[in-house]
Amino acid sequence: MISDESFPIEPWCVRETALHLSVLAQTESVFALSNGHIGLRGNLDEGEPHGLPGTYLNSFFEVRPLPYAEAGYSYPEEGQSIIDVTNGKVLRLLVDDEPFDVRYGDLLEHERTLDLRAGVLRRHARWCSPAGKQVEVRSTRLVSLAHRSVAAIEYTVQAVDQFTRVTVQSELVTNEDQPEPSADPRVAAVLRAPLEAVAHEGGDQQAMLIHRTRASDLTMAAAMDHIVEVPGRVEVSTETSADLARTTVVCGLRPGQTLRIVKFLAYGWSGLRSRPALRDQVAGALTGARYTGWEGLLGAQRAYLDDFWDSADVEVEGDPHCQQAVRFGLFHVLQASARAERRAIPGKGLTGTGYDGHAFWDTEGYVLPVLTYTAPRAAADALRWRASTLDLARDRAAELALEGATFPWRTIRGQECSAYWPAGTAAWHVNADIAMAFERYRIVTGDQSLEAACGVEVLVETARLWHSLGHHDRHGRWHIDGVTGPDEYTAVVNDNVFTNLMAAHNLRAAAAACNRHPELAERLSVTHEETAAWHDAADAVHIPYDEGLRVHEQCEGFTHLREWDFTADTAYPLLLHQPYVRLYPSQVLKQADLVLAMHWLGHHFTDEQKAHNVDYYERRTTRDSSLSACTQAVLCAEVGHLELAHAYTVEAAMIDLRDLHHNTRDGLHMASLAGAWTALVGGFGGLRDDEKVLTLNPQLPSGISRLTFRLRWRGFRVTVDVCHETATYTLRDGPHGRLPIRHSGEDVELTTDAPTTMPVRVRTPLLPAPVQPPGRAPAHRRGERT
Amino acid sequence: MISDESFPIEPWCVRETALHLSVLAQTESVFALSNGHIGLRGNLDEGEPHGLPGTYLNSFFEVRPLPYAEAGYSYPEEGQSIIDVTNGKVLRLLVDDEPFDVRYGDLLEHERTLDLRAGVLRRHARWCSPAGKQVEVRSTRLVSLAHRSVAAIEYTVQAVDQFTRVTVQSELVTNEDQPEPSADPRVAAVLRAPLEAVAHEGGDQQAMLIHRTRASDLTMAAAMDHIVEVPGRVEVSTETSADLARTTVVCGLRPGQTLRIVKFLAYGWSGLRSRPALRDQVAGALTGARYTGWEGLLGAQRAYLDDFWDSADVEVEGDPHCQQAVRFGLFHVLQASARAERRAIPGKGLTGTGYDGHAFWDTEGYVLPVLTYTAPRAAADALRWRASTLDLARDRAAELALEGATFPWRTIRGQECSAYWPAGTAAWHVNADIAMAFERYRIVTGDQSLEAACGVEVLVETARLWHSLGHHDRHGRWHIDGVTGPDEYTAVVNDNVFTNLMAAHNLRAAAAACNRHPELAERLSVTHEETAAWHDAADAVHIPYDEGLRVHEQCEGFTHLREWDFTADTAYPLLLHQPYVRLYPSQVLKQADLVLAMHWLGHHFTDEQKAHNVDYYERRTTRDSSLSACTQAVLCAEVGHLELAHAYTVEAAMIDLRDLHHNTRDGLHMASLAGAWTALVGGFGGLRDDEKVLTLNPQLPSGISRLTFRLRWRGFRVTVDVCHETATYTLRDGPHGRLPIRHSGEDVELTTDAPTTMPVRVRTPLLPAPVQPPGRAPAHRRGERT
Repeated sequence: MISDESFPIEPWCVRETALHLSVLAQTESVFALSNGHIGLRGNLDEGEPHGLPGTYLNSFFEVRPLPYAEAGYSYPEEGQSIIDVTNGKVLRLLVDDEPFDVRYGDLLEHERTLDLRAGVLRRHARWCSPAGKQVEVRSTRLVSLAHRSVAAIEYTVQAVDQFTRVTVQSELVTNEDQPEPSADPRVAAVLRAPLEAVAHEGGDQQAMLIHRTRASDLTMAAAMDHIVEVPGRVEVSTETSADLARTTVVCGLRPGQTLRIVKFLAYGWSGLRSRPALRDQVAGALTGARYTGWEGLLGAQRAYLDDFWDSADVEVEGDPHCQQAVRFGLFHVLQASARAERRAIPGKGLTGTGYDGHAFWDTEGYVLPVLTYTAPRAAADALRWRASTLDLARDRAAELALEGATFPWRTIRGQECSAYWPAGTAAWHVNADIAMAFERYRIVTGDQSLEAACGVEVLVETARLWHSLGHHDRHGRWHIDGVTGPDEYTAVVNDNVFTNLMAAHNLRAAAAACNRHPELAERLSVTHEETAAWHDAADAVHIPYDEGLRVHEQCEGFTHLREWDFTADTAYPLLLHQPYVRLYPSQVLKQADLVLAMHWLGHHFTDEQKAHNVDYYERRTTRDSSLSACTQAVLCAEVGHLELAHAYTVEAAMIDLRDLHHNTRDGLHMASLAGAWTALVGGFGGLRDDEKVLTLNPQLPSGISRLTFRLRWRGFRVTVDVCHETATYTLRDGPHGRLPIRHSGEDVELTTDAPTTMPVRVRTPLLPAPVQPPGRAPAHRRGERT
Repeated sequence: MISDESFPIEPWCVRETALHLSVLAQTESVFALSNGHIGLRGNLDEGEPHGLPGTYLNSFFEVRPLPYAEAGYSYPEEGQSIIDVTNGKVLRLLVDDEPFDVRYGDLLEHERTLDLRAGVLRRHARWCSPAGKQVEVRSTRLVSLAHRSVAAIEYTVQAVDQFTRVTVQSELVTNEDQPEPSADPRVAAVLRAPLEAVAHEGGDQQAMLIHRTRASDLTMAAAMDHIVEVPGRVEVSTETSADLARTTVVCGLRPGQTLRIVKFLAYGWSGLRSRPALRDQVAGALTGARYTGWEGLLGAQRAYLDDFWDSADVEVEGDPHCQQAVRFGLFHVLQASARAERRAIPGKGLTGTGYDGHAFWDTEGYVLPVLTYTAPRAAADALRWRASTLDLARDRAAELALEGATFPWRTIRGQECSAYWPAGTAAWHVNADIAMAFERYRIVTGDQSLEAACGVEVLVETARLWHSLGHHDRHGRWHIDGVTGPDEYTAVVNDNVFTNLMAAHNLRAAAAACNRHPELAERLSVTHEETAAWHDAADAVHIPYDEGLRVHEQCEGFTHLREWDFTADTAYPLLLHQPYVRLYPSQVLKQADLVLAMHWLGHHFTDEQKAHNVDYYERRTTRDSSLSACTQAVLCAEVGHLELAHAYTVEAAMIDLRDLHHNTRDGLHMASLAGAWTALVGGFGGLRDDEKVLTLNPQLPSGISRLTFRLRWRGFRVTVDVCHETATYTLRDGPHGRLPIRHSGEDVELTTDAPTTMPVRVRTPLLPAPVQPPGRAPAHRRGERT
């Protein structure tokens, strides 16, 4: 268990003050470093012990057959699994003849610190070998945000009180042993020894290993180089073989003397380029890293992060847990996306093998909203990646006898990898989520070029999908039947409100984009009749509403399904203890669904509807999905349940720092970490953009005395500074000096001349705060009322 | 292709006049012999060529893991697959040195005949070896209906025009090579070499092989003995090894001389009994067979069948195709069930490995209605088998957090083996189908002992299942949501009418059974409150009805789903060309569903509703399931579309004689073969029993001039003789002399004194005959109007 004491509360770092092997795998995820291209789990330098050894390259995967005991037409036959590639993190240490291993000898001190401003992972250990020799080991690890192919480690060993012979083996290791997989369906397929040796080469203190995957036919290269500094004589030599390169450094240290090694790592992969080209690319990156030097890399890292925090930081006064967690989350969201550059942003970033390394709708639905406001270039790159898979999505639609394109439910490279269609293929909403992400990017950034480059095509093809999926009944109403909405405890239903509203939004957005880009529309053979049909469908969309209960039905008939029989000993998550055949036809939710519709498309609902809907669905939502708490936070805040919203915010933010879903070992939950930002900014800041205007409606819970956040809007940087009575808007940069916004329902114009302070409009809840299913009330923050 | 010319029209046999290797696998199924315990595919005596070699023992299976790319709670982890056991059919022939193989030399004549009265498969071949030697080979094969463990073959070879040295190798062969499986999900898992040798022993002309399965831990023994008759010198010797026993017979034949071998086979298996006990059991069976002798076996076989046909035969004047096919079907239904004796009746009997050898709801829904009226002892045995699996069904219900018991969708031994829950576990109706089969058996036979022995318990536990599955909404209506009805192109829906009516029937039947057996009810802890709750639910059951269209909805909202876009080149079956994600939310049916409810529980529907419902669903039913045509025949007949009903009857009957579903190679379709009887007797005879009275309402289509069928009702044998104007009822046997029946809505009392002749009530269809989806009109019989 990760306890409340595991990580002291500090605003800009996550620090572990003692090593607990029982949570090693979890901390490896928490301390993972990535730039979106390379991912290094926070494994100990010496390689062992480990929870899950992990080194990942974005979109470097192996294919594996997807088995079906009962096959079906159009079921994907091949899955894609992220694989643990050549590990360059390893620096083994021998103290005299004894290997430094925290399980032996005495570990006198051990501390690891993830520095969110410096962008490095630091480690300090003081160890007494079984023979009684003490050493002080320090390492600093970074994956460069500035240099996409580069990682580096500074590793120092100091003899404490006796002369010590020190040997360091710095390695590249391929095909590491993996732990056995669990029975949990959320865990990745383990692929044993997935890499086949292609070439290996070495110099005095540098080496490169080249490998390829057997089935997916991708080639990768990993290389290392070293700087070795030590007083006195030192011997450095390097050996290489198929799956191992080892640079060995031997020296003697008198008490107080230090051996310092800087290890530069470079990675590259390709499915197209030749082996020599790949080798040269990686060798070049390594040379560049050495040229930049350790201090240069550190400096660039900090500069990159300074710029990020300047437009992304969220300050939370009064709740230091939340303060730490939201920065931790933003840091990891940045790490997952910064240099992904037209590759997917997986659900777990590059921090573990959970969900096979797949990207889901989480990317567009949860991560991109944050990036769009804080790091729009990364958002644009992620959208370009989606667009690059459009031909595969077209093929998939054709296979399913549909028009347009349908994007995969889960994938690494664009092919559908979901082996359970009721919660995969049927979750068509991923297409509208993608369309909305394009729209949001355009509205928030004001950048029209992405739409012209690829957005129109995505919007048109997804609109065509919806149009062919839906149908008008004999009364003219437009329905989409047999779909699965966000809530995965209710699947293959008719007229899911979220899906229907999102589809209508997709159809209208596509029609509008065609109007903006008539020449592109023509190239895509869009006719006036076609866009008219899109409007017809969107205008006639059926939205089930229960007049008796005065709530929207999550889908047709939902409020008439049986209630779930919660008991005191209900075990969560339900999916591990109850069959789908029982969950689906019950009024029990894995996650926000209708409530998410009220967040993303809130203008379709009245305040009263929102209040009643929140009340109704809160009582039935288990939050068995990590995507839920942040959305519940936003809507609870909107309808005035501010303390509940605060509790959900903290839950979303703490998901991995407290391992709340018991699977942080497999990787971090990027959507929930991003959701912490959304909960604060969307919930207590009241940020909305579904009416194409920067809309804010701030109000704080009692446990937060001040909330300051930054965001970008059409070239401006906006700082929003909220306390209980007022909100102050400060405008920086920007193409011209004025920005119209909406504050608490009121149109306001900000200027770059001076901050604008507005009173907070106090929200009075229409209904008392609802209760949750037994055992599912969120853990409330200390000192809060609920 | 099996053509119309493949089998000449003969009333009491199916005869193949020439060997076509392209349809060898299909004819192996058609010519399969079985008694419900042993099954022998119609493989050629000499073993090769073959389509699918097959020797089966009822419920002798191997387990195999069921793989899931995405696992889920309560998914069955082990499947059960019927396996090809030791083959005792093999009699290889060498003519001088050349093996008799129909692919070499000249096959001058070849004929195989399945004799439906004698219960044997006869073969005659005249072959000229590559060296020019002619032989005449005849064999007669039987699987004894009188002696459960015994099969036998009479094999003769005659030299035609030259002296010929003849060698016959009579074998037991274990672990035969199997052909590669296809990609069709309906095909069985192939298990390679599933049997492990336990022991082998042999004498001069007899041998036994004992094997066991690796995982399911079942042991089987197969033994053979021989009688050899030949003029002149003959040498007989036997060798045995682990997987092969071979008795070799060598002799010389002058022209006209004949070698005659009678091969006796005995089989046995057990999961409990010791190896010596099993060995002795099989040796005893073999001794018994030899004692009975070949003529004795033939005589007992004919006597068994004479008795069967006396109470089961259907005579169809005017349609000789149909006449042949319905007898073929009845013969195979008898073969599948006669000596199953508390083992399952698989969907394909013991004629092939299709559907892994599993039993489905087909047994209770399609096969048992026929057996109940024609071979009630076999029906009772099948029901006892179901009841014997009740504890497994209780466990399964508990696993799914349900009360009572839920029987498996597909199984051999009682464990759920369905790996696709939307069309497996969710098809809860199997439980009500089983309950109805118990009720039908009681009503039709008048035998109360089965209910007392096990029926009450099954009814109570299935009623408890329904009660826990359903729920009352806030208006008091009772719903069952998230279910799959018979139609597998629409799954996991709410309030499927068939399921709801069947569940209500199950609940009422259970309550009534408890009233009849208060002491049993008490032992099962059934309280008055519980039965009252069952009645409440049944009385409040929600039956969706579309007032606008004046049709019942197959399930809630069905008539508002999109229509399927049939085109001229729609490829059937749709399931092999279209994804479930598209099929489920469309108004397209694989098979009769609401129409089946109108057959089994017709008194819940008015004549007008029946007419409109038939018209509506006919247009949307693809008959991609082999379970559909017979039910459509019955309801089309009821609403007056007699020619259409006739066409469906022939389709149901000809399914395997014409390989209409292109998978007869994997085994025969027992439900459809049984359905041919149901189509004739239920459709043109108008037989119903859902109001607990023997009800008939005969009317013939123009293409049938006279229909005579026999059935048993409470100890009576009833012969119904229908022509276009009148129906004559003849009563035989019976506990007392009078039987009240209902004829065309009129109460009539039959007596054993004299036949009763009644006028046929002419049915005038309310609506014109409907059309079917493009390409799915049934093939109409020659000379018919439609």
